[in-house]
Amino acid sequence: MNLKQMVGIESAKFIQDGMIVGLGTGSTAYYMVEEVARRIHEEGLNITCVTTSNATEIHARSLGIPLSTIDEVSHVDLTIDGADEISKDFQGIKGGGAALLYEKIVAHYSKEVIWIVDSSKMVETLGAFPLPVEVIRFGSQQVFKIFQEKGYNPVIRKNSDGEYLRTDSNNLIIDLHLESIPNPEQLADELIHMVGVVEHGLFLNMVKHVIVGYEKGPIILDNPKF
Amino acid sequence: MNLKQMVGIESAKFIQDGMIVGLGTGSTAYYMVEEVARRIHEEGLNITCVTTSNATEIHARSLGIPLSTIDEVSHVDLTIDGADEISKDFQGIKGGGAALLYEKIVAHYSKEVIWIVDSSKMVETLGAFPLPVEVIRFGSQQVFKIFQEKGYNPVIRKNSDGEYLRTDSNNLIIDLHLESIPNPEQLADELIHMVGVVEHGLFLNMVKHVIVGYEKGPIILDNPKF
Repeated sequence: MNLKQMVGIESAKFIQDGMIVGLGTGSTAYYMVEEVARRIHEEGLNITCVTTSNATEIHARSLGIPLSTIDEVSHVDLTIDGADEISKDFQGIKGGGAALLYEKIVAHYSKEVIWIVDSSKMVETLGAFPLPVEVIRFGSQQVFKIFQEKGYNPVIRKNSDGEYLRTDSNNLIIDLHLESIPNPEQLADELIHMVGVVEHGLFLNMVKHVIVGYEKGPIILDNPKF
Repeated sequence: MNLKQMVGIESAKFIQDGMIVGLGTGSTAYYMVEEVARRIHEEGLNITCVTTSNATEIHARSLGIPLSTIDEVSHVDLTIDGADEISKDFQGIKGGGAALLYEKIVAHYSKEVIWIVDSSKMVETLGAFPLPVEVIRFGSQQVFKIFQEKGYNPVIRKNSDGEYLRTDSNNLIIDLHLESIPNPEQLADELIHMVGVVEHGLFLNMVKHVIVGYEKGPIILDNPKF
């Protein structure tokens, strides 16, 4: 069993009958979705799920997971998602899979959030992973120029065909190659105030548990802020 | 000549040869665009324009105005646009025409901004006009619920067919019926931090001149902050 599968299975244990569950996006969340489907079909787990991307919706639907949408449910009890980088103080970068906007919306409306990662994602300080910023296409070159002037080393993300990647909301992703983010809260505030920026990949003060996969087994870290 | 036409024509006098000009959206900006086209064709005015909506682009193109886009120009010298409400201290509400996102992007990257209004738009305090907020469709019902809980009297805007109106970026508009906005800067900050909110109709600390149409003629107000 690989580390992503290990934490995916471990995280699904947190799901209880009757819950409304947010399903994350990406290669680690993939295994969690598979395990959720297994528990539904083999153990009779009775839950409703909402998804955080078109990709996860297609996957979950193919597995027969009962689905609703974030706009139809009254609340979300628990969202389980991957992360691209998690610092010692439980701050995260997400968006490597370009689903950061919907992921943040679902997480924001969730009573509890769990992130599942392999041990390579745990870092001292955020920033080695490029920070994704979702921007409106109209005016995106002006935003890009500002990022350049600030020394944020921006790169507009392309898809495998070499064209600008479009998010599920038809926006662009600009990845900021910052190397280090000493003050994530300050940067988050700066980015969200920029005209044309829809959302950014800093997920702050949000996660309750992090499940980290190591060769010897999963370790659950509890955020002392919750 | 109606008041909207009066200020539209008056504002076009601020445009000089060689400028890159942002063209606003709406029933007042309409007359400005017409006058800009007249000056280009009759006076040989040599300018490049960028538009703030698909509607204005179609209008300007039909008049033979030389067009570029906000992503192609190095800067914008002057943007002329309408407004739905302007307070005594030069703060504004825009977005009655649902073009607030592109209007704000173009205004933000403009060296100077002029608003043109008839005298009915001038108010003591903002808020009688419903404040438009552009939101991502995904999760919009959750945003709506929060607005309800806050007592902001939200209404999701519909088009003439009774369906939810889609902006040029395919988002929704939620109009907040606030009656009065005693602290626009505080509200702007609150709204922009809400997950799922793309932009809002508060245009603060942005306009240099306001041209107001009265029966006896246009009056130009200069913002003392600029």
